Amino acid sequence: MITGKNYIGNLLSSIGHKTFKTFNPQTNLENKEVFTEASEIEIEQATQLAASAFKLFKKVSGSRKSEFLNEIANEIESLGDTLLQMYCNESGLPVDRAIAERGRTVFQLRTFANLVKEGSWVEAAIDTAQPTRTPIPKLDIRKMLVPLGPVVVFGASNFPLAYATAGGDTAAALAAGCPVIVKSHPMHAGTGELVATAIIKAAEKTGMPNGVFSNLNSSGVAVGISLVKNSKIKAVGFTGSIQGGKALYEMAAQRPEPIPVFAEMGSVNPTVLLPNSAKTKGASWAKTYASSITLGAGQFCTNPGLILGIKGQDLSNFIQVLCEEIVKVEPTCMLHPNIVSAYESNKTKILAHKDVEVKGTIYKEVKPNYSRQIITTVEGATFLKNTNLHQEVFGPFSMVVQCENAVQLEEIISKLEGQLTGTLLAEDELENYSTIVEALQNRVGRIIFNGVPTGVEVCPSMVHGGPFPASTDSRFTAVGPESIKRWGRPFCFQNWPNSLLPNELKNENPLAIERLVNGVKTLDKI
Amino acid sequence: MITGKNYIGNLLSSIGHKTFKTFNPQTNLENKEVFTEASEIEIEQATQLAASAFKLFKKVSGSRKSEFLNEIANEIESLGDTLLQMYCNESGLPVDRAIAERGRTVFQLRTFANLVKEGSWVEAAIDTAQPTRTPIPKLDIRKMLVPLGPVVVFGASNFPLAYATAGGDTAAALAAGCPVIVKSHPMHAGTGELVATAIIKAAEKTGMPNGVFSNLNSSGVAVGISLVKNSKIKAVGFTGSIQGGKALYEMAAQRPEPIPVFAEMGSVNPTVLLPNSAKTKGASWAKTYASSITLGAGQFCTNPGLILGIKGQDLSNFIQVLCEEIVKVEPTCMLHPNIVSAYESNKTKILAHKDVEVKGTIYKEVKPNYSRQIITTVEGATFLKNTNLHQEVFGPFSMVVQCENAVQLEEIISKLEGQLTGTLLAEDELENYSTIVEALQNRVGRIIFNGVPTGVEVCPSMVHGGPFPASTDSRFTAVGPESIKRWGRPFCFQNWPNSLLPNELKNENPLAIERLVNGVKTLDKI
Repeated sequence: MITGKNYIGNLLSSIGHKTFKTFNPQTNLENKEVFTEASEIEIEQATQLAASAFKLFKKVSGSRKSEFLNEIANEIESLGDTLLQMYCNESGLPVDRAIAERGRTVFQLRTFANLVKEGSWVEAAIDTAQPTRTPIPKLDIRKMLVPLGPVVVFGASNFPLAYATAGGDTAAALAAGCPVIVKSHPMHAGTGELVATAIIKAAEKTGMPNGVFSNLNSSGVAVGISLVKNSKIKAVGFTGSIQGGKALYEMAAQRPEPIPVFAEMGSVNPTVLLPNSAKTKGASWAKTYASSITLGAGQFCTNPGLILGIKGQDLSNFIQVLCEEIVKVEPTCMLHPNIVSAYESNKTKILAHKDVEVKGTIYKEVKPNYSRQIITTVEGATFLKNTNLHQEVFGPFSMVVQCENAVQLEEIISKLEGQLTGTLLAEDELENYSTIVEALQNRVGRIIFNGVPTGVEVCPSMVHGGPFPASTDSRFTAVGPESIKRWGRPFCFQNWPNSLLPNELKNENPLAIERLVNGVKTLDKI
Repeated sequence: MITGKNYIGNLLSSIGHKTFKTFNPQTNLENKEVFTEASEIEIEQATQLAASAFKLFKKVSGSRKSEFLNEIANEIESLGDTLLQMYCNESGLPVDRAIAERGRTVFQLRTFANLVKEGSWVEAAIDTAQPTRTPIPKLDIRKMLVPLGPVVVFGASNFPLAYATAGGDTAAALAAGCPVIVKSHPMHAGTGELVATAIIKAAEKTGMPNGVFSNLNSSGVAVGISLVKNSKIKAVGFTGSIQGGKALYEMAAQRPEPIPVFAEMGSVNPTVLLPNSAKTKGASWAKTYASSITLGAGQFCTNPGLILGIKGQDLSNFIQVLCEEIVKVEPTCMLHPNIVSAYESNKTKILAHKDVEVKGTIYKEVKPNYSRQIITTVEGATFLKNTNLHQEVFGPFSMVVQCENAVQLEEIISKLEGQLTGTLLAEDELENYSTIVEALQNRVGRIIFNGVPTGVEVCPSMVHGGPFPASTDSRFTAVGPESIKRWGRPFCFQNWPNSLLPNELKNENPLAIERLVNGVKTLDKI
């Protein structure tokens, strides 16, 4: 079933000489399939094809793009157990998670299918001519969003489906009218190939141009760098580490023609436990957070890695229950030995601080690649002084910072780097801590009241992004239909013949979309 | 009247030691006012004040921001002849232009005032809770745009009012809720100080926080670099040269916390004269273009610097009339001796190519700082081979490229760098040249049918931007109400208490704005 080859548009290709295998962390063995890394020639072919495909794809109607996206979803579902099995073999994640993530992936594809079928996402705006205006006549001007061009997508290690080959970035870019080249994640190249096959089948079935999608295998950084530097590429979507995302971002800025990079990167997702909440609901939140911290071995970008409270008996009680609960959770398998070793090494760096205390962890031996969850504590002053304690430890790790008082708590929050989320646990006391709430708002993309940051709903009101380094551009979200805005640019027609305008802007409004006409939103014709 | 000092928030300050004067190109003499460049201490003070002001200003209602913006417009108008005189003294532009540009400036301010008073620009989206959803309940999630933080604005040399101190970037940033620090343009520091005084007065009258606006004098690049690198600054707006814009863009990308830079830069604004148009309307377009090329001494970012046609008698006739007409235009004053010398030096570089011909120019002596307009021609093959001929010559310069055929014309267009505008002059023939039209669309932000690129209407459908190097981010426009999107980011509240939500997101919809509620646009309460 798996060829190990690259999809250069519709054709399988493997002219390169570098091969690699994926790894099953549950069995602690390599998987049997052999993948061939894309060569420079294949990279050039894929980008050439994408550029040619763009000329046709950008003119494909929303209705036909919708068929394409829906067909991708159908083809992914048709892969059935083959996909689920490959997903589990390459990630160590349980089959229930595979099913749930596949559900999210096809939901995203169908959400974008509906969005582009409806059509008003292009934000059509029309100002009609006023030939008699003085001192100078006003010309007819019309605007809509158009696709940027070929987009390169770097999938995430922790979501082999939903933030990968046919994940949110790809679905949004295709919906916008941009051909996509996926730099397949080396940890799940097989899952990637299966999904790529589904996309290629869907493209062929629905008559999309060859080159609308390519899938390139890679075992290291070379393929990605080559793609980002390629002049045919007009934008980049990335989900992964701060180091990787920032490197691509700077590389793209230094191109002769700089291009936008939307990178969704690290986050410690601070949670603030306010005093009344600690007093009356501390134990209950401790149980909830023990689950949230260990969910999926803590391998979520919204994992709560930092809990901030004000020193005292209530916070101590919270920590005690959190530790009691977290050690009850059975250790689970991480995605890859490299992720395990990064987890261990990042933990070790944090624990090297003499003032960081381990409060609860699993000491017993665990299976290879299984992670031992851990709760640490530190004083507010120590945390403030040591910004290396602010860094994400990707895995089932959380640090509770015991602040002296609300002033120190606010100072800590205001000195954090940008975050995807911030959470307030509070009982009728939020208004007394407005400066803390505001400091947190200033640092995050999403703020949560009495809940956990894990769980990112796919809906129009979601923001999955935030100030750097949560993302490279806080003006966009990586999740939800609005994420399509990353891949489109406004384009303006002045005095253009009506018959040659795109349907979105014609007088007749043939798509019956809402448009801003002379400053008024309307479904009317002109 | 002019103090020559910096506005550090509401206070005038001049503790630095570097001073400079502006220049009147009409008299060819320095103006008398002495300006003191902002010192590092003052830069730090201004950014600190802006960061403090942001905490208050971001919570100011749309209605109150609207009062502030309208009051700025009123105060600018109240400056009366003092402002007009200073404008003319510092730019060499005629008073009619000063009046027109002041009109545009106050129109922009009032447009943004109306936008934020109405309030729906924040794109409020609400997805209400579904506690009984399976397998997991859906939480209440609400999103709106919030301001990024303090913005630095670099004004343009060629628009001392409309793209300067209280120009489009400043008006949009203040409207979004971002404090602004203007790096005043050294060529019109006096005009800048007068307008800054108007802004400060308006801020004080309408009760805006101190630090919502600062105005820093600068004679070179040091102040700007220091501002862009300052960690308190969260975004940059720039209008000027490719060299300057790209340098700031790269600098911002390399900060520990990268920030968005929207730079609107150079453009040669290609115009394509199609064969039937050349045959039947060539002479008429030649007259129109002679005016457009020389308008304001060619000192517009939308000046038509490149005209592409297919070789033959009709194109030759067009060139002949263009030259006859353009030499009739009286030479006019450029903005500054530095602009004149850059114009001369860029012209010389182009004319150094042995295959570039001068077809029409003014040979007679002109007054100091007056520019001699020029029309040059070159063969398509020569133009294709020499990308240095593709560069902008800022001033009343245009090059007519005589292409062998439509294929070469398309190739030339597809190899151009990104442009603000592209124009098609055509008679019932546009459909025969669809690949040329598409190639042009791919390179520009705005495409014009049978017109001139000069003249940028301020309206919702305008796009003033385009692929690099027309701008650093083609996903935004610098002109029109949509330009506010450069300075805002989506922010999401999850499960947040209704009473503590901003008015834009409260159940009651107290602002009566249109919102996307559970996927449906509505003015209703929840």
